[in-house]
Amino acid sequence: MASGCRIGPSVLNSDLAALGAECSRMLDCGADYLHLDVMDGHFVPNITFGHPVVESLRKRLGQEPFFEATDNPGALIKDIRENGMKVGLAIKPGTTVEHLAPWANQIDMALVMTVEPGFGGQKFMEDMMPKVQWLRTQFPSLDIEVDGGVGPDTIHKCAEAGANMIVSGSAIMKSADPRSVINLLRNVCSEAAQKRCLDR
Amino acid sequence: MASGCRIGPSVLNSDLAALGAECSRMLDCGADYLHLDVMDGHFVPNITFGHPVVESLRKRLGQEPFFEATDNPGALIKDIRENGMKVGLAIKPGTTVEHLAPWANQIDMALVMTVEPGFGGQKFMEDMMPKVQWLRTQFPSLDIEVDGGVGPDTIHKCAEAGANMIVSGSAIMKSADPRSVINLLRNVCSEAAQKRCLDR
Repeated sequence: MASGCRIGPSVLNSDLAALGAECSRMLDCGADYLHLDVMDGHFVPNITFGHPVVESLRKRLGQEPFFEATDNPGALIKDIRENGMKVGLAIKPGTTVEHLAPWANQIDMALVMTVEPGFGGQKFMEDMMPKVQWLRTQFPSLDIEVDGGVGPDTIHKCAEAGANMIVSGSAIMKSADPRSVINLLRNVCSEAAQKRCLDR
Repeated sequence: MASGCRIGPSVLNSDLAALGAECSRMLDCGADYLHLDVMDGHFVPNITFGHPVVESLRKRLGQEPFFEATDNPGALIKDIRENGMKVGLAIKPGTTVEHLAPWANQIDMALVMTVEPGFGGQKFMEDMMPKVQWLRTQFPSLDIEVDGGVGPDTIHKCAEAGANMIVSGSAIMKSADPRSVINLLRNVCSEAAQKRCLDR
């Protein structure tokens, strides 16, 4: 099995003028990791923040792995590993899961985007769930992450499909009680994972 | 004459995890404006922050004009004006001042870069001062800004050449007494401007 269910608040829609405080708040509320949407205005039509911001956050919060868009995953995977970091590989809604499959044994995590990357607050694309299901079946021990429109209303679909790493932005960040939302998301995922174990 | 001497701290090298607080601190220390280096990783080899971060800052601090790289300044100048904002046009060290001149009467401010754009903390390029001098002579009422390596050691060159808007990053941000540095920079500029007036 993938290593437990983890919830990573996405801070894209938080107060970016106080990103360190927002990240600390999420960790205090029980976040398992933080999801930082580095956007460069070219791979996606928006510019959020880059290395200097992550560096400032690192000074406060510790390490954070990094993701890049590339046509040559093999070389980048090798490069990231050699720098002592974990590797995640993401596919946009328009990219089939077969593009990711050849690399699945070389990566730590597969991210199935459930919205078009670029902006927060978008609607969850349920038709991405077969990708998650296929990956979970083929690679039982792979960490599988979903990102985009995930919250209390959509977590069940993700959990049942087999996702164990949950990025959730607005649903957590804009909640009056982020801790409860994080716990709810984690519980739904854990229950689905346990059920999969028993069903085997 | 250009409308007074103004000092704009550049927050590029500040704590980007607490950008709102850093900007407020600079305004409290007497900054006339804030200089935000939006970098997209393509025009310059770095990604800093983009529109979502500026939007978060706006909510705290008020309006801030925006700059973009373009091969067609005319259309962009028109577009910015139509959106009720002021227009600045910047030239990198490798770009001659003749490239800027045709637009000088349509813009609110000319920025002469005194380092290669991309990173903070670089050494001031004194050989850019003839550009500032030429612009000041040709366009006495134009706001002329310098950006890169400007601080107490280099402000005299900028002021004498005719710059009246001073971007200063590390020299202000990393000072124990930002208010004094801001005042010093402004005073040197104002004195040089008064001297130019009397010399006419």
